Amino acid sequence: MTDYKARAKAIKMVVFDVDGVLTDGSLFLGDDGQEYKAFNSRDGHGMTMLRQAGIAMAVITGRRSEVVRIRMESLGVEYVYQGRRDKRPAYTELIQACGLEHSEIAYMGDDVVDLPVMRQVGLAIAVADAHPLVKQYCHWQTRLPGGAGAAREVCEELLAAQGKLDAIFAGYLSSS
Amino acid sequence: MTDYKARAKAIKMVVFDVDGVLTDGSLFLGDDGQEYKAFNSRDGHGMTMLRQAGIAMAVITGRRSEVVRIRMESLGVEYVYQGRRDKRPAYTELIQACGLEHSEIAYMGDDVVDLPVMRQVGLAIAVADAHPLVKQYCHWQTRLPGGAGAAREVCEELLAAQGKLDAIFAGYLSSS
Amino acid sequence: MTDYKARAKAIKMVVFDVDGVLTDGSLFLGDDGQEYKAFNSRDGHGMTMLRQAGIAMAVITGRRSEVVRIRMESLGVEYVYQGRRDKRPAYTELIQACGLEHSEIAYMGDDVVDLPVMRQVGLAIAVADAHPLVKQYCHWQTRLPGGAGAAREVCEELLAAQGKLDAIFAGYLSSS
Amino acid sequence: MTDYKARAKAIKMVVFDVDGVLTDGSLFLGDDGQEYKAFNSRDGHGMTMLRQAGIAMAVITGRRSEVVRIRMESLGVEYVYQGRRDKRPAYTELIQACGLEHSEIAYMGDDVVDLPVMRQVGLAIAVADAHPLVKQYCHWQTRLPGGAGAAREVCEELLAAQGKLDAIFAGYLSSS
Repeated sequence: MTDYKARAKAIKMVVFDVDGVLTDGSLFLGDDGQEYKAFNSRDGHGMTMLRQAGIAMAVITGRRSEVVRIRMESLGVEYVYQGRRDKRPAYTELIQACGLEHSEIAYMGDDVVDLPVMRQVGLAIAVADAHPLVKQYCHWQTRLPGGAGAAREVCEELLAAQGKLDAIFAGYLSSS
Repeated sequence: MTDYKARAKAIKMVVFDVDGVLTDGSLFLGDDGQEYKAFNSRDGHGMTMLRQAGIAMAVITGRRSEVVRIRMESLGVEYVYQGRRDKRPAYTELIQACGLEHSEIAYMGDDVVDLPVMRQVGLAIAVADAHPLVKQYCHWQTRLPGGAGAAREVCEELLAAQGKLDAIFAGYLSSS
Repeated sequence: MTDYKARAKAIKMVVFDVDGVLTDGSLFLGDDGQEYKAFNSRDGHGMTMLRQAGIAMAVITGRRSEVVRIRMESLGVEYVYQGRRDKRPAYTELIQACGLEHSEIAYMGDDVVDLPVMRQVGLAIAVADAHPLVKQYCHWQTRLPGGAGAAREVCEELLAAQGKLDAIFAGYLSSS
Repeated sequence: MTDYKARAKAIKMVVFDVDGVLTDGSLFLGDDGQEYKAFNSRDGHGMTMLRQAGIAMAVITGRRSEVVRIRMESLGVEYVYQGRRDKRPAYTELIQACGLEHSEIAYMGDDVVDLPVMRQVGLAIAVADAHPLVKQYCHWQTRLPGGAGAAREVCEELLAAQGKLDAIFAGYLSSS
């Protein structure tokens, strides 16, 4: 945990997997081939607070859908890599595009396809219902499962570790 | 709890947050950009009983969607403020529009964005799965989480506190 | 329970409420005003077995949607009353249309609007997550909540009480 | 369990029921008659690993929908039998089409309609929330319910029993 807090202080960008992390892993599909996802409003506010505090965001997902593009745009996620079953090259591109060090990046995942990136980043986070192998190789596990507030938990933990959370909360408690 | 009952007696309007209160926080989005929400039929009947008992209703939500307008209209919610990330000015407008005192208004929320309004109203209610800070600053917490009957619970508690619930229930038990 | 079994033996028709009984109460609505419901495949097979065993089915629901018409037609539900907020007159119409006695009819509900009919039928059944008042006035409660198999449970209980279940199960276990 | 492991070693094809196995049994229907299903992204990756390891896949389902065709095609499921309320003849066709022995086929089901096939295959698997009769006649039960990762569990158990899982996992942990 001490290790986790030290790692959290250095983070300048959070990379999220989508299915199973920002959702509970449910892929809603219709007869017409359209895809639907259920994002979490509390996760959304966490990501908004993260962005406002100057921490950048990215997603790398193996699937490709318009709904992910729409949601990520509305949340101000700068880097969106879709259709990347092998997440390694996408992460390499991201590192080059954003100019950050591995130690400045957190990655939040749930499944074995996330492992190659999780083993490179400064802070690897597994959701509560992640695959056992993902839990084995992460620096920290959330209390909540994917889609049920796990991303919000990460956003607040990072902001707290960097000493930024109290000021944000104070803004919601002030009388003006 | 004594305090809560006294506050509940004075309530003439209930203001609901939408996501996480009238739903479980799930934002269903489709590839075509359409938004979907899962409301709860038992909450709906609670709101209908509230309206029939002469208690007014409003919603203030940070998001904006056609689905909220449709659902609130069907439930007879008089005041609908959408797209209000900062809920303070919307609440000020509502107070002016309805002509009620703060002490006559209950607000039901789940997240930190609800705090500025919750700290002004006569009765601030947090859903069972609300953010810890919201629970800290509320007058009462529901037993059920948002979207799973929390709003119904609030409707019945208010009607009971105002001595109106037994007559409503009697109507469902009469033989004619 | 003894009372319940005696009542179950006489049943010739099961009347289902829809929201909260054949679903978990979630009303999915889209921006375009379309309504969606999540029915349960195991409930569906229970209703199919009921129909094949010669027990009739009906639904009485306060809401009105095309999706209910479609699903009930595919399950062979003969009597479909929609848009009936007051369920009493719909039940009276049903009794006249089907020519059965109250004692030959079972009703499965979850909320107070179901009470006027539940107090008339021969067998009143509440889902596990029904309103406390509904549980108080029912003859039997299911083990499972609405939408999660409660209707299937009822179908098998009725078939068992009437001595028809073993033969149905035997059909799935025979080698030809 | 010893018996289960011996049976698992011989499996060359897995046949999945759809509703209640690859989903939690929820049939999402819209007013326009369109059908939607919620598949699980972790199940999807399990099925991908299975296919890459050379184990074939099939589905036999009583319902018929375009969404099943779309999802199964994207997962590389070779044999898709829809609209087969009686699963026996579909299974007979499958056996002839694929040229495998009963002992080389695993079937994963949740309801009594799956029993006629489950009693023929080499390895009959029930999801955690299967019908009691299905649990009674299966060789193995999953720890997770349908739609919540039960299929992933089966994929990994089969791969482990055949000594193929460690090499797959090693690929996600290698540095290149």
